Parts: sequence; structure tokens; C-alpha cells
Amino acid sequence: MPLGQRAGDKSDSRYCGVEVLDFPAGEGLPAVLNHSLASAFDFILAPLVDPNYRPTPGAVLPVSASDLVLGPAQWSNHVVGKISEWIDLDAEDERLRLDSELTLKQEIAWASHLSLQACVLPAPRRPSCANYARAVNQILQGLTNMHLWLRLPLEKSEPMDDDLDKVKNNSQMSEKVDSWELWNSFRLLCDHSSQLCVALDILSTLPSINSLGRWFGEPVRAAILQTNAFLTNAKGYPCLSKRHQRLLTAFFNHSVQVIISGRSNHNVSPVSEGVLSGDENYIEEAPVRHALSPYLDYVAYLYRRMDPLPEQERFEINYRDFLQSPLQPLMDNLEAQTYETFEKDVVKYSQYQRAVAKALVDRVPDDAVSTTRTVLMVVGAGRGPLVRASLQAAEETGRKLKVYAVEKNPNAVITLHSLIKLEGWESLVTVISSDMRCWNAPEKADILVSELLGSFGDNELSPECLDGAQRFLKPDGISIPSSYTSFIQPITASKLHNDIKAHKDIAHFETAYVVKLHRIANLAPPQQVFTFTHPNFSPDANNRRYTKLQFEMLPDTGSCLVHGFAGYFDSVLYKDVHLGIEPNTATPNMFSWFPIFFPLRKPIYVPDGSPIEVHFWRCCAPTKVWYEWAVTTPSPSPIHNSNGRSYWVGL
Amino acid sequence: MPLGQRAGDKSDSRYCGVEVLDFPAGEGLPAVLNHSLASAFDFILAPLVDPNYRPTPGAVLPVSASDLVLGPAQWSNHVVGKISEWIDLDAEDERLRLDSELTLKQEIAWASHLSLQACVLPAPRRPSCANYARAVNQILQGLTNMHLWLRLPLEKSEPMDDDLDKVKNNSQMSEKVDSWELWNSFRLLCDHSSQLCVALDILSTLPSINSLGRWFGEPVRAAILQTNAFLTNAKGYPCLSKRHQRLLTAFFNHSVQVIISGRSNHNVSPVSEGVLSGDENYIEEAPVRHALSPYLDYVAYLYRRMDPLPEQERFEINYRDFLQSPLQPLMDNLEAQTYETFEKDVVKYSQYQRAVAKALVDRVPDDAVSTTRTVLMVVGAGRGPLVRASLQAAEETGRKLKVYAVEKNPNAVITLHSLIKLEGWESLVTVISSDMRCWNAPEKADILVSELLGSFGDNELSPECLDGAQRFLKPDGISIPSSYTSFIQPITASKLHNDIKAHKDIAHFETAYVVKLHRIANLAPPQQVFTFTHPNFSPDANNRRYTKLQFEMLPDTGSCLVHGFAGYFDSVLYKDVHLGIEPNTATPNMFSWFPIFFPLRKPIYVPDGSPIEVHFWRCCAPTKVWYEWAVTTPSPSPIHNSNGRSYWVGL
Repeated sequence: MPLGQRAGDKSDSRYCGVEVLDFPAGEGLPAVLNHSLASAFDFILAPLVDPNYRPTPGAVLPVSASDLVLGPAQWSNHVVGKISEWIDLDAEDERLRLDSELTLKQEIAWASHLSLQACVLPAPRRPSCANYARAVNQILQGLTNMHLWLRLPLEKSEPMDDDLDKVKNNSQMSEKVDSWELWNSFRLLCDHSSQLCVALDILSTLPSINSLGRWFGEPVRAAILQTNAFLTNAKGYPCLSKRHQRLLTAFFNHSVQVIISGRSNHNVSPVSEGVLSGDENYIEEAPVRHALSPYLDYVAYLYRRMDPLPEQERFEINYRDFLQSPLQPLMDNLEAQTYETFEKDVVKYSQYQRAVAKALVDRVPDDAVSTTRTVLMVVGAGRGPLVRASLQAAEETGRKLKVYAVEKNPNAVITLHSLIKLEGWESLVTVISSDMRCWNAPEKADILVSELLGSFGDNELSPECLDGAQRFLKPDGISIPSSYTSFIQPITASKLHNDIKAHKDIAHFETAYVVKLHRIANLAPPQQVFTFTHPNFSPDANNRRYTKLQFEMLPDTGSCLVHGFAGYFDSVLYKDVHLGIEPNTATPNMFSWFPIFFPLRKPIYVPDGSPIEVHFWRCCAPTKVWYEWAVTTPSPSPIHNSNGRSYWVGL
Repeated sequence: MPLGQRAGDKSDSRYCGVEVLDFPAGEGLPAVLNHSLASAFDFILAPLVDPNYRPTPGAVLPVSASDLVLGPAQWSNHVVGKISEWIDLDAEDERLRLDSELTLKQEIAWASHLSLQACVLPAPRRPSCANYARAVNQILQGLTNMHLWLRLPLEKSEPMDDDLDKVKNNSQMSEKVDSWELWNSFRLLCDHSSQLCVALDILSTLPSINSLGRWFGEPVRAAILQTNAFLTNAKGYPCLSKRHQRLLTAFFNHSVQVIISGRSNHNVSPVSEGVLSGDENYIEEAPVRHALSPYLDYVAYLYRRMDPLPEQERFEINYRDFLQSPLQPLMDNLEAQTYETFEKDVVKYSQYQRAVAKALVDRVPDDAVSTTRTVLMVVGAGRGPLVRASLQAAEETGRKLKVYAVEKNPNAVITLHSLIKLEGWESLVTVISSDMRCWNAPEKADILVSELLGSFGDNELSPECLDGAQRFLKPDGISIPSSYTSFIQPITASKLHNDIKAHKDIAHFETAYVVKLHRIANLAPPQQVFTFTHPNFSPDANNRRYTKLQFEMLPDTGSCLVHGFAGYFDSVLYKDVHLGIEPNTATPNMFSWFPIFFPLRKPIYVPDGSPIEVHFWRCCAPTKVWYEWAVTTPSPSPIHNSNGRSYWVGL
């Protein structure tokens, strides 16, 4: 039974499982499963094979239940297999190594036979686990649907502060190993297999926030919440620390399922929601008591207590971590559907209206409003939203306006004409069906309004278009926007990496994608990349750019893996009116732009304490513009997208 | 005019060039070239464009000579272009950066127009040279035949000994940069372009031997020998220190051309070979004196003084660094040509003869020679060379022999029968046309002789074959070989890497190759990998293996790049008679085996002082045997060849 319902959110995190600690001997598994399901758990994490079994030639595998005792759907939907925990593939003892490998392969084969969705692999017993990884990697090559979840303790990482150098010089010397490092080695050895995921054991202590943050870019499928991690509230019921609560909420938000595990430390009577929330109207269910029910009740309470998903998030939920190629609005003509979507972004146009209003007031003093008619040109008018915003700004400020609506898409021009007729703007607006770069304007403009921005600011060639349009801007004229700046930050994004890798070519790793970033870890604050200012009448002006940036990772992050760079923009429309998606200054409730993502062909491992140095180029040729990018610290990457061979924007 | 002739060696190192320091203004290039050629230089390294030129719109590039003043063959065979040295693509000053990039591209375009074979790029002016690399990388994408040689000083690397940690923590802090590091960053940024090579400036001081050694695995095309690097001998003539001499000889051996550069410091009369070598019969040539002729004379003297190439090297010269797929002698039948080649290896068979002789003497005491007939079985008899060696051993020791020659290749069996008839061995040898793994022997053997070894020892499945054959070995019988061990060592091998990369797939990076290693750098001494002992009657015996090795790089190497692992074997035939290709113990003058090479999909950068940890697995399935391999330190690689998906040996 799901933990609850959250409008718009159909993710797996609604489901909560329970770990079966003891081997259900004598085909006892169906009883255990029924008891758990009756107690409102959704699935069990159960051992499949008697842990006392060691491989013997000709022996029948002593499984916890034959495939016949449960239906195929029950196996598949309600059982996650737990691989025997005694296995130790990196033991010194060769016999133990070989037995472990054989058992691992037999158990996975059995789980595949049962069509289980996933099996949990026991945590590696040693920091060096190459042989374990080799065997798992061999298994992964042959798996069709099943996923393997490598179990790892979410432990406090090293006491890095006082003996950083010692740890750096010899990672073997540290007594505890950061479990993220173990995961990273394991998945690198398995070459980023998309079927290799993580199940994290949540214990009573938690590592630093930033070190936890890394996991949100990793394929964490389950949080195994240990009963020992719970505290006891005043009434004797289990509860979690504030930090644990926040972590669980974050997991819920990232589609991570909870599995409750351990022995009960809280032998309490059935809890009512009222006890937890103060709501006395809660109706109790039939008390089928599982020893871990009190913990489930608390987890369900946390789930239901979450704020509902904001409407915008709900709207965008299907775009999460989905890679889209950026638009080419200059080379291609947008379709009506695309205009329709973008025109719904009320916030964006109200920002433009504010900017135009301020510019009009600055340009035309109050005592000149009746004598001055401002010439405003909307370049890239589309189906007219900026024309409307400009006219509304004029009305709001009482300024007279003459508007030219310049648009290169002949289909949009048709709509523009209809709009003007419909709105009765014939005397105010002249429609020009032309590319702004080659239009011969009959007069010069006071104000040039455009919205040619991409997720990375200049990536839809706003600079090149406005260079072409500023010919017909008065020398003291105003461009709205007056400038825009791109930003990047390094991120962990294993899901995006795997989706790109699935194409099996270099070109997809040299393409920037528009993507609603969700399952990612931001590793360092964003920094500015390129800025463009308009108008720019300098004779030396050009739109080529080169920027070198150095990022320091957030404190206490530990080591991490950078799969690429998230990109954003911020734009100054006019004076203090800005518009953008850079996370720290993002315009609220605006949905026209998702971030952009620049991948790395090979993810870069950044050791704890090391900066990452990255280079971005904006390159220009007569018919196209493109970016190249490369990392030089901590280790050089190839330069991506040389000569725009994989990804470019046509002029 | 080449420096000299060396039997069998037709490499580029016979040619010596001279650097033109001053721009030959006014179309003076042909005169400079003619003077140099007349003075016995083979080519010139010359500036192509006036170094005072800065890009100006519409300007004509002030080249040193129009393409018309020299014929196409002259340009191509006798001129290496020198790109203007003032360029600085990583300058703070954007104007200088853009001018530099434009000049670089114009000069390369001009050189391409002239069909030059190579241009020398000036050394990067700063440790951080990403923008330079980006521009060069863009150029490389469009180059068809021309190579670019990045010029780098062969300088002493860092004083690493006393402040290793400081350097490690912040490589910017060190004053001098190891030029290999610069090269490594540059080529990684350029993604190992096969057209990007190195020209090393040889100065008066040299770095440590091991740090020099790294360059022999890199694509060094020219050694630019500075006149300042020369000493003066007692007669006033230029000469080189012993270390410089050894370095130059090593360059000659690795097809590296010398270019002499600098101002003359030795204004001496034409030198005769006699002055240098003591040979008074040397005939002087017509004295066309170039200022740098004394240096050329000395270099030519060093070249001619080299020992001639040994016959075996001459025979193998065309195999150098040429990747061959290993034989599959078990699955495929060898051809007559292959038998023919291997049977010529006199040394190998004389070692076998020695081993059999010792075994016979141990087995049959002198007082039993007349009464005892030893049963010897040659398993994998081929066309009979081991039968012959065994019979010779019997004759030599006066022991009586009964030989079974077991061979699975029916074609070879035909030859065996002819041989026996020809030699009159009918009473001594019984030919068995069968796979040794399924032959039902009529009696048991005292001695089992086989030669089923591959370059990596067990890689042609000797263990599996001998497991099948030991059924008919007496419990106290002898196997020759009695054991064999494989070895690996990490190497730099950029040429091999590029050849494999040209296939543009993963499979070729997961294949082991047989290769006459030549342009490589050995980075650490070889270590043992797997050992097999025969016979092995233990019930637990199996042929799966797993070994983890840690290599410490040779002292003072500095950082390096590991492209993969060279593999060898050594085999104990019987007691102290061994046979093998492990470099430290290799059997002299044996040519049956080249080393094996296990590549890495992505070369691993090993920082100065770091070990490299590598894992090798020998995996067995019912129909095939394969290796998997992975690096875990300093950073994990993917596990190569999982499940033998790319490379395996059929059973």
C-alpha cells in the first residue's frame, strides 16, 4: 500500500519495503510476504538462498521458495532479492573467492529466473573490490531487465580536516573509507553500467550535508532505513532527527524508495496519525501488526506531511532529466505549438513590460509625453507577445509609441497580422516580414526589444541577430535586453551520462542539451562564463569568447565525479529589471527555459580538496556558431566539439 | 645527403636538418636551401612568414618564398615549416590572442598549400596552454597529410626530491614545468591526435635517464640539437658529452631525425672523419662550408659509429610496433608457412634438446641404459622439430627412446609421416593423428614434451591441453615444460594506442596483440602474473587465475602515461633449462615470440611518485578462455574484455 498520494508525483518513492533478516526456511517466504503486505509494506527485501549453503557439485540450490509458490507478478512486484551476505570475492583465500563468485552467479541466475526487478548486492567487505566488480560486471553484460543495487553504508566520511595530507598521500592509511569512493571505483570498473544502482543504509549518524548531496546525482534506488537510526519521542514512538527527516524528504523527492530494516526497538501499540501530527480525526486501520509497523507509520507520516508539488513542478515532472536538443530558432522556423507554450509564460512578459515601461519613462520626460512618439522595434516579434507587452507599457506610462514588429518566420507574420486586426492596433504597429539582419529600416529606433535568448543566453545567437539589428538603433538608443551573461556549474549527473552513452558515439557527448535537471548534485556555485552587451558600437566588437574558470567544490563534499556542466543565463532587460534562470537569482515562476547541460565524454574524478578548471569557447564561422569545452584540472579532458563537428547553431 | 648507411635500417633518422634562424627576406629561401643541401644537410627548418607581420585585414601574407620559387618535391622533401615564434594564444591580452590564432591558422594553411610534410609549432609559453591546444586541435581536424611537431625543451624536470608535496599540492608553485607534462596536457586536450608529434630541443643539460626514457614511447619526430649543447674537444672541434651521445644514439635507433640549430661556436676548418675517429684514410669532400657543418660532421660521425643492426633486428624491423592478432593454434590449424618460420628457431629446439637430455639422464641411470626404453610423447608434434630434438637428446645421452608424436592438425601429420620415412625413424616414432585431449594412449609416458606456449605463456591454452594430456603421463612422469609464468610491465606506447584507436571501437582496445615492441617506454620492471605447473594431479586444480600487481615507476621518471601493458613469459623446461622472452632473463637469439600487448581503452596518467595497481584475470568457460584486465590505482579503469566479449581463445 503506497505511503500516500502526492498530486502529480507518481514516483517509486511512494512505496516502502521491509528487509527480511532471517532466511525463511521451509518455503516460508509466502507467509512472510503476506504478513508484510498485510502490514502495509509494498515489498520485501528477502534472501533467496539459505545463507548456510556453500557451492557443492551437483547440489540443488536451497532457495527460500520455489518459483511456484508465488505468482510471477508477486515475485516481480513484491520481492527484491538479497544476495547472500557472506560472499567475499576479494578474500585472500582462493576457495572462498571462487565459492563466493559461484554463489553470486547462481543467486542472480535464480533471481533472473523469477523475473525480479532488482537484487541487492552486499556491501563490499574491503576498500579494494576489483574482483567483486569484475564478477558483477560479467553478470551485468548478460542481464536484460533486472537491476543490481550495490548496498553501501551512508557513513560519515573521513576525519579529513586534520590529516588531509596523510589521507591524500595514501588513501589506504585512513581507517574508514568514504562509501562514495567505493561506489565510484565499483561503477568505473563496471564502466557506468546503467543497470548498476545503489541502495544506501541509513544509520544513526549522517555525513556532512554536501557529502550527502553527491548521492542525488547518483542512481540511488533505495534508502535502507535502519531501526537503529530512529530516536524515541516523548510518547515512546519512533521518530527521526531533523537531519534524518530532511534526508528522507530529499530521497522522496528523488524517487528513492525506503526500505525499513533491523530489529524493532519500539514495541508500541498501533500508532494513529493523530499521535504524530496532532490530528485526532485519523481513522485507524485493522491492526495487523508487523514488528516494524511503527517505523512504517512514521515514514508514511513524513511522506504525507510533505508539501504538495507546486503546479509548475507538476507540469514539468515528465521533463525531469530528459535530454532535449536546443532549438535552432534562427535556422528553423518555430511551430505554432512552440509559440503557444512560450507565450503562456506570464512572468516573462510582465518583466519585459516593466523594462519597456522604465525605458519609456527614462526616454520621454513627463512634460514631453504628448509631443514625443517613441519608435520601438520588436525584433523577432513571433506571434506578438512582446508587441503586446510594449503597448501595455506605453499605456501604463502614458507614452506614445510607434511599433515595428519584425519577424522572419512568414507563418508567424500571418498570425501577427491577424492579431493586429483583432486588437485594433493598425495605427500603432507595422509588421515587417524580414530577417532583422537584412531589413532596411525606414527610420531608426529609440528602443529595440528582443527575446532571442536560449538557456545559455547567447546560444540561440542573440548576439549575431542584435549585431545585425543595431544598424537601425539610434546611437543613444536602448536595447532591451541590455546585456546577458551565461553561467555554469559542475554537476554529478549519472542518469544524463548514461542516457548520452546509450548512443554509443562521441557526437552525443559533444552536444549541449536543454534539460530539466533533477537527479543531479550541484558541486560548486555557478560562475559567469560569457557576457554580451547591447548595443555595442565598438569597431573591435566580436562575438567570439574564451573563458577559463576554476571551481572549488562545496566544503566537506569529499571526492566527486563530474559528468558535465549545468548552464544558465541571467539577462539585464533594463537597469534593475532582470530575467534569468541562474539558480541564485532566478526569476520566480518563469518556465520558458530549462537549464542547458554540457556533458563530458569521460566523467572527471575530482579528488577531495582539488579544484576543477574548465575552459569554454564560443567560436564563430561565417555560417555557424558553436561552443568548445575542456577540463584541464585535475586532469585534462579532450577538447569537446572541435570546429563544431558535433553541435553547432546555424546562422 | 643521409648521415650514412646502416644495413637494414631505412628509418628517417638517417636524415639531418638545419634550423634557419633568420627570416630569409626577399624570397631568399631558395638560396638558403641550396646552401644547406650543398653542405650535406637533408632539409631545413625554416620560417615561412615574416615574424614582424601581424594580421591586418586585406594584407598579403609576407611569406619567405612564393610556392613558385621551389618545385613541389623540393618544398615537400626539404622544408619543414617553422610557425612564427611570437604567437601566444594564452596571453592575457585578447588582441594578442586573436592575432596569434589568426597567424597560426594562416601559416598552417600556407604550409598545407605548399604540401609540406610537417610544421614545427613553437613551444607553449605558459604551463596553461588550453587555448593554444584548442586552436591546434581545430587545425588538426582539417589536416590531411601534414604533421604538426610541437616544439618542447628537453629540460631538467623539477627538483622533485625535496619538495615533492608542495609540487603535488600545487603544480603552479613550481618554477619550471616538466616539459613532458606540458606535452601530455596538450595531447590529451587534442585527444591523442596521430598527427600531433614532438620536436625536442636538446640543450646542454639533460634530465635523468628515466625521465628521458618516457619520450621513447612518445611520437618524437625530431631532436633539435642546439649548438650550445656541444662541448669542444682537444682539437677545437665540437663534440658531445657521453650522455648526449647515448641520447643521440637512442634517437637514431628510434627513427628520430636530428636538426642542428643555433649560432656556430666552433669556427673550425672542415673536419675529416680521421680527426674524429682516428681513421687517416678518410677522403675529404669538396669544402662547401656551412657555418654549422662542423656540428653536422660530428652528428654524422656518431651515426656511422653505431654498431650495425644485428641480423635478427634487421629481420624483424618491419614488424616493429606492428599489431598482430595472436595465433589460435588450438582452434585453427597452422599453415605450412607458419611451421616453416618457427622451425627455423635453432635456439629454441636446442634448449628443448638440453632439457630432454637432462630428463633422460635423471630418469635412466647409466647402468640401466641398455635395459630401459623411455616412453616419450611429443604432444603437439607439428611437423616434427621436437621429435627431432628428442631423438637427438636420446642419441647424445645414449638413452633408448620410444616416441609418440601426437598431432591434431591432419596436414602436419602428413608431413610427419614423410619426415619419419625420410629419416628412417620408423622403428622409433609412432605418429598419432589426434587431439591430445581425447587420445586414448596405449601406454603411459615417462616424458611429455610440448611447446604450446604463446607470448604470454598460457595464452595459447597450453594449460588446458596439458591437463588433457597428463592422463597418459605416469604418476612420476616429467612434463617438459615443467612450468611457465607470464609477466607484465606498464609501458608508454602512443603509436600502438593510436593504431588501435583508428578502429574507432571498444573491441580493439580489449584485444591483446602480439607485437615487436620498439617505440615504447618501459616504466617499471616486469612482474609475474600467472604460473602453471605440469603435471598437476591435484583434485582442486583449475586454470582460472587472478593476480593483483602494484608497480612502482622507475626512480626519477616523473609523471607518465600508461597506454597498456607489455606481456612476456618465461618457462622452465626442465630444472635449470629455461626458455623465455621476459626481458631480464630472455633466451638470447630466439625469435619465435614477440611480446604481447594489453592496451587500455583510456591511457592512465600516473602522477610522479604514484604506483599503478593492475588486476589480471584468466577466465575459463566450457568453450573458451580469455583475459580481463583493469587498473585501480591511481584511478579506476573500466574492466576490459568482460566475458571475453572482444577477445578470447577457443578451446
